[in-house]
Amino acid sequence: MIEVGIIGASGYTGGELIRFLMKHPDVDIVAATSRKFDDEPVYKVHPNLRDCELKFKNIEPSKLEADLVFTATPHGASMKIVPELIDKNIRVVDLSGDYRFESTEIYEKWYGFKHSNPLNAVYGLPEINRKEIKHADLVANPGCYPTGAILACLPIVSENLADNIVVDSKSGVSGAGVNPTDTTHYPNCSDSVSPYAVTTHRHGPEIQEKLSKYGNSKVSFTPHLVPVIRGIMTTVHGFLTSDVSPEYIHELYKEFYDGEPFVRVLEKGESPRMSSVRGSNNCHIGCFEIDENGRLVVASSIDNLVKGASGQAVHNMNLMFGFKETESIDNIGLHP
Amino acid sequence: MIEVGIIGASGYTGGELIRFLMKHPDVDIVAATSRKFDDEPVYKVHPNLRDCELKFKNIEPSKLEADLVFTATPHGASMKIVPELIDKNIRVVDLSGDYRFESTEIYEKWYGFKHSNPLNAVYGLPEINRKEIKHADLVANPGCYPTGAILACLPIVSENLADNIVVDSKSGVSGAGVNPTDTTHYPNCSDSVSPYAVTTHRHGPEIQEKLSKYGNSKVSFTPHLVPVIRGIMTTVHGFLTSDVSPEYIHELYKEFYDGEPFVRVLEKGESPRMSSVRGSNNCHIGCFEIDENGRLVVASSIDNLVKGASGQAVHNMNLMFGFKETESIDNIGLHP
Amino acid sequence: MIEVGIIGASGYTGGELIRFLMKHPDVDIVAATSRKFDDEPVYKVHPNLRDCELKFKNIEPSKLEADLVFTATPHGASMKIVPELIDKNIRVVDLSGDYRFESTEIYEKWYGFKHSNPLNAVYGLPEINRKEIKHADLVANPGCYPTGAILACLPIVSENLADNIVVDSKSGVSGAGVNPTDTTHYPNCSDSVSPYAVTTHRHGPEIQEKLSKYGNSKVSFTPHLVPVIRGIMTTVHGFLTSDVSPEYIHELYKEFYDGEPFVRVLEKGESPRMSSVRGSNNCHIGCFEIDENGRLVVASSIDNLVKGASGQAVHNMNLMFGFKETESIDNIGLHP
Amino acid sequence: MIEVGIIGASGYTGGELIRFLMKHPDVDIVAATSRKFDDEPVYKVHPNLRDCELKFKNIEPSKLEADLVFTATPHGASMKIVPELIDKNIRVVDLSGDYRFESTEIYEKWYGFKHSNPLNAVYGLPEINRKEIKHADLVANPGCYPTGAILACLPIVSENLADNIVVDSKSGVSGAGVNPTDTTHYPNCSDSVSPYAVTTHRHGPEIQEKLSKYGNSKVSFTPHLVPVIRGIMTTVHGFLTSDVSPEYIHELYKEFYDGEPFVRVLEKGESPRMSSVRGSNNCHIGCFEIDENGRLVVASSIDNLVKGASGQAVHNMNLMFGFKETESIDNIGLHP
Repeated sequence: MIEVGIIGASGYTGGELIRFLMKHPDVDIVAATSRKFDDEPVYKVHPNLRDCELKFKNIEPSKLEADLVFTATPHGASMKIVPELIDKNIRVVDLSGDYRFESTEIYEKWYGFKHSNPLNAVYGLPEINRKEIKHADLVANPGCYPTGAILACLPIVSENLADNIVVDSKSGVSGAGVNPTDTTHYPNCSDSVSPYAVTTHRHGPEIQEKLSKYGNSKVSFTPHLVPVIRGIMTTVHGFLTSDVSPEYIHELYKEFYDGEPFVRVLEKGESPRMSSVRGSNNCHIGCFEIDENGRLVVASSIDNLVKGASGQAVHNMNLMFGFKETESIDNIGLHP
Repeated sequence: MIEVGIIGASGYTGGELIRFLMKHPDVDIVAATSRKFDDEPVYKVHPNLRDCELKFKNIEPSKLEADLVFTATPHGASMKIVPELIDKNIRVVDLSGDYRFESTEIYEKWYGFKHSNPLNAVYGLPEINRKEIKHADLVANPGCYPTGAILACLPIVSENLADNIVVDSKSGVSGAGVNPTDTTHYPNCSDSVSPYAVTTHRHGPEIQEKLSKYGNSKVSFTPHLVPVIRGIMTTVHGFLTSDVSPEYIHELYKEFYDGEPFVRVLEKGESPRMSSVRGSNNCHIGCFEIDENGRLVVASSIDNLVKGASGQAVHNMNLMFGFKETESIDNIGLHP
Repeated sequence: MIEVGIIGASGYTGGELIRFLMKHPDVDIVAATSRKFDDEPVYKVHPNLRDCELKFKNIEPSKLEADLVFTATPHGASMKIVPELIDKNIRVVDLSGDYRFESTEIYEKWYGFKHSNPLNAVYGLPEINRKEIKHADLVANPGCYPTGAILACLPIVSENLADNIVVDSKSGVSGAGVNPTDTTHYPNCSDSVSPYAVTTHRHGPEIQEKLSKYGNSKVSFTPHLVPVIRGIMTTVHGFLTSDVSPEYIHELYKEFYDGEPFVRVLEKGESPRMSSVRGSNNCHIGCFEIDENGRLVVASSIDNLVKGASGQAVHNMNLMFGFKETESIDNIGLHP
Repeated sequence: MIEVGIIGASGYTGGELIRFLMKHPDVDIVAATSRKFDDEPVYKVHPNLRDCELKFKNIEPSKLEADLVFTATPHGASMKIVPELIDKNIRVVDLSGDYRFESTEIYEKWYGFKHSNPLNAVYGLPEINRKEIKHADLVANPGCYPTGAILACLPIVSENLADNIVVDSKSGVSGAGVNPTDTTHYPNCSDSVSPYAVTTHRHGPEIQEKLSKYGNSKVSFTPHLVPVIRGIMTTVHGFLTSDVSPEYIHELYKEFYDGEPFVRVLEKGESPRMSSVRGSNNCHIGCFEIDENGRLVVASSIDNLVKGASGQAVHNMNLMFGFKETESIDNIGLHP
């Protein structure tokens, strides 16, 4: 049994962490912090957690005692909290962008402020860093878009099979977080779709940096907001550099992800759907078609709050502490 | 005053045609045909048309007398009806795919059956064929996806500025028509997004054929279904072949569409949204950004039932009969 | 041609007022005020009004010169602005709650603050006050819920046919206005329904006060938020006090609303739908069924931003200035 | 370990049964029947069940061997299957309407055909029939609307505290089943709300029959379709016959449901929301407010496919076989 703290527990990712950890036989949640909701029962903010007896507490990170802390804090805030925890020998899974980049320079360019505490973190995508995660003290949980994009691109990038890859992603609105804005106001975003930050989203360089460790493909990224609560559909368009068949590509993906507990390679020609993975930690990858221009289409779907955030964070915890990998995050998607 | 007939008036495009034509001062709707709803008031099927006194009639096309007929019939059905109408000196705007292709071969390859009556039709995209439409007897109304895609691609294709263009489109569910299927069943498609026919949609070759008259760019097309009633968001990713700036591209679009009554070029960096054009005949084009890989992003939004179908069909009629171009289709979009 | 000003033009009702007035042949919009968006083009806030050349201006109400002003201002703000306008001989249609009540006492009880300037206003529901509206200097535009509820209840209340009437209303989210809140945040309100203010909504006493001028029925009101952009479905459950048939009730409604330009009494057993009136100024009333407990069900649907706000406001203006009643607000609903 | 069969496993309730039973440590699913999808993997129809190795089989009910069978078959079909199973000493949870009524006469009046095999069934609402369910051979799983309505009404009806109760329910579209129709076609039902069968829905007499065993209140029922995938919001309006306070009512509910594993009585004034119970077997009950007309408002929310169907069916199975009541159905709701 380990003691776990959650810093920033009132956001959506905080709520999802509690949803999974409440059922975890080896975890005791010792703190769920929130400044705004100090002393409020957790279910006041997360109405689905009605049976959770936890209360939010406004605790200084420096006062936390735990075996592991999830920092579900904003970019810029994590880098002020994490080093202190690490110093106290608390292992950390950070859900912000602060420790995702190997290059501090790229981080500072795209996030727009100086990084005060560059630390050695392991990028917490289990499918590529399983071994390193097990021994890591600090795991940088991947961004939601990068999770779906890297999993969809990795097999072809690793084999240098395509270039000029376009990642056209569609995200549900919960990806924007719990704070209401004009953009997330129901009458503005319902029944409508819009691209945003079309060449400037910070998840673009994250995708590129991680993939460039495996191959040379140039990858371009554009996100869209779609009227969906949870889910990211990532459509990858890659121009093939070798003359390979759809069958070859399909086999490549099946082998690549063979044995992975949360990645499912669909049958040839089958399209992923968001509803298949809604609420679950699964990633579905499908399509594997090639058109007359030599363009390959692969698409992946994840739940941005689960595989794209809190489910993956718990997966990382399971690896770090030697628990069963799928413990408490093996629930099935909600279709319809 | 002209007499107008609508064949296949019980579908969504039929309903929209009536919505516009009811208000048209120069048009008298003399027939709205339906086999299934013979003798039913139009508002039984189109509940928004409560004040329309028309009844559907099961009339054989050969019995129709009119100055113009809109054939809102399925692919394969139009080619059996249109020649007879043309023979009777009735001008036709066909909303099916039957007359959209110059190449009968391409049509037959993608639509899967023999074309019984290849005829000279003018492709009814006013922004490129305004002059020809005015004198046409048969206008092939463009597909919904091609309308948004061609308008978004045309300026750069005409200048041969980009290649390996990826058109990633997101369509509202009304694009699938009025007949319910598993795919359009609310619990299956709500709160979810899926790509479909990712390299095999028939609108792909339509886009390619039309654009290839203006330039050599290879264009690849993938559509998605999004939980929206009306609207198509077309995201165009093009790899630039010349070293041009976003400002240059933006100016190019502004000049290209200068004076067009239904195309609006947004300000630089502004993204189009579906809700801006909901229910209207407008096309908004925006983004005009270039990333570090030399990829240009342009996006357009239309209402698939209006600019992508019935509004454009009425626009074509206005041109064919010398009416004011915007007559009865100049209503404003419904945001929110 | 009259000169018209809109105070508070950046909200949804402001946008809808401009949408209608832009097309009005007898109206010149001389001011659209906004403090926050001073000097911004109107389309920056209302992206559907791309062709509108107006800019918002931060003008003090006291500086306005116009024949008519629409005050689309919050409750409490209107009462500070309206008297000044009236003093300057500007006629006013007020869209707030400030002048809707005959009883200042009821207003103060439910709105929670003192009414500084009780004035004689005409309640702007044309179906009951057409004559008075024509000569009014100040028209209090009805609340969105009361519009749908009063129209659905009036014929039976006037005849004292039912008591213990329950008005169970379902409103789209645009009814909450343009400012984002936790409640209107897409992930919180999409795919979900909730009742709110179940016995304490301010539109309850408004419904009761207006209906009590026509009959003695007790009317109870409960609103719900539904995942819809626009629209109010009002379900009226009334326990009959006389032994009448559904046919009798249906005839009663048909006669009651005979000749009304914007009220449509559906056929017996037919249910209204929001999509039939989406974007239009129409009110559809249907159902007219009676169950074994003597409970009558009548339901009405309106677009809360149009018949429930700005469309009705323009209707009132048309009456006040002797324009054609339906001028510029006779557009057809958007189904699908 | 028991052997369980599911007849009619390709519908939504079939999919949900498998979702729960796959994780049940004491259950072995020996058959999931479907005529249409014979020999297809279950995940072809239920894409969220990707890891389920079951295949649908077209098995005659008479050939089934099992300890328990869930009949997820349409009304009228169950009565032909169930008696045969009972004869073979297979215990049955029937999800159709065929065995819900004590009065065959009422059944035949509302369902419109003769009941061929009236049998003694226990009405499977554990909150009222826990003891009887344990020993039942045939459990009639309640209708979705009655589940939410009875739980919301029972405490006040049992105490005869209210009369002229109006049950105004709002259901998500999955309640209409898996087969697409005009009504469930996305463009028709999205962004819209409609009442239907306003005095004639078959769940009305089911609610009335069950409640009338506990008190004399007349109960009237009207359902609505709302643009939601899963969930029923039941708003109960009851006219009080005694002078009681909201606090009294609230206490009554808390005591009534004390210890119930799946019913949560919210805090006073708190409204239930669908998203709090999405995907879970919980029922949330809230509001408990009284207005000036002596009308009490209570509202409940459930997931129609879980507590309103398959979750409750598994709950009944757990009771019948002495398993832990909450086994495999204690997952937490999905908010957002």
